Amino acid sequence: MIERTGLPLVISAPSGTGKSTLIARLRQEFPAFAFSISCTTRAPRPGEIHGKDYYFLDKKTFLQRRDNHFFAEWASVHGNLYGTPLEATQTILAQGKDIIFDIDVQGARQLKQTLPQSCFVFLFPPSLKALESRLVKRGTDSREVIAKRLANARDEINQCDLFEFWIINDDLDTAYEELRAVYLAARARAIHRPGLKQTLLAT
Amino acid sequence: MIERTGLPLVISAPSGTGKSTLIARLRQEFPAFAFSISCTTRAPRPGEIHGKDYYFLDKKTFLQRRDNHFFAEWASVHGNLYGTPLEATQTILAQGKDIIFDIDVQGARQLKQTLPQSCFVFLFPPSLKALESRLVKRGTDSREVIAKRLANARDEINQCDLFEFWIINDDLDTAYEELRAVYLAARARAIHRPGLKQTLLAT
Repeated sequence: MIERTGLPLVISAPSGTGKSTLIARLRQEFPAFAFSISCTTRAPRPGEIHGKDYYFLDKKTFLQRRDNHFFAEWASVHGNLYGTPLEATQTILAQGKDIIFDIDVQGARQLKQTLPQSCFVFLFPPSLKALESRLVKRGTDSREVIAKRLANARDEINQCDLFEFWIINDDLDTAYEELRAVYLAARARAIHRPGLKQTLLAT
Repeated sequence: MIERTGLPLVISAPSGTGKSTLIARLRQEFPAFAFSISCTTRAPRPGEIHGKDYYFLDKKTFLQRRDNHFFAEWASVHGNLYGTPLEATQTILAQGKDIIFDIDVQGARQLKQTLPQSCFVFLFPPSLKALESRLVKRGTDSREVIAKRLANARDEINQCDLFEFWIINDDLDTAYEELRAVYLAARARAIHRPGLKQTLLAT
């Protein structure tokens, strides 16, 4: 078997675009994706284990690590801090394991700096109107929350040039076929096969 | 339907790697690939039509055009000159039609300059030994020709860094799955969707 380095697959999308469904399907077809354990300042929930579910850190430690470039990306969510350790992630990738980053545009922007070999995918709703209909239909959000999600969607679409691959989730099967193709193609990039050329020339 | 510019898909491989088989399969699954008509200095064969099969040019005209950067790529094959008109190719691509370039490494190198938006794919044999076995088994070449093909293969593999995507044709179905994925993924690149962002923001 010829050696391969792992692929960081970075996927962003406005809320309601179907990102979670598509990622779940990808994980189901390709169960070998590795997980990297995040750090967080939020309190552990019952049953959560430090070093397995998360590394639970106090805020001071988290901020120190952040300032020391410990994280591939970090974010503040509902007042809690979350971060992905860079070195642990690089170790997983060096073992040839791929990692999915299900992440917002700000996080993707950080990964562009810290893991530039990543494959950056942005999922679009078919239109902002369609996105609104989906959010209304989902029935979980108030009018105000929906308005905020739409404003965020507009803001994220405005930043879509950060991403190399653009997939429109109009039809779920078509969008999945494209996401799957982007994953398989990105795995076939020369940058993930550092030893291939020399190995072949030696045969 | 959202507008898309066409993809130039550039595929190179050492002779005997199975490139023709893989490309034929891709054309069969995706019959919408467009053809760009080449220019050549070789004499028309019976039934060949100027402007349909080829543009048949005398050598002086061909060389003038070559010097005027008329060609996306050109090559000399068995003493005849062949070239792909750049402008006609760009017109086809602007219409959203994809084009396959089944081409050697030298041609790919030219396309890197003239059609830099191309997707560059290099197919590897599983090993040079395996390539030799295939060429021997094929039974169409003398020992000398096979030795020359192997030397060429080594030379082409040495230049594989020119290509973004690397596919090893060990198992044909696996290699096809990867080539197909690279094609679909490259179509999903942001650079081929120039109007998408603005269109979506206007909905």
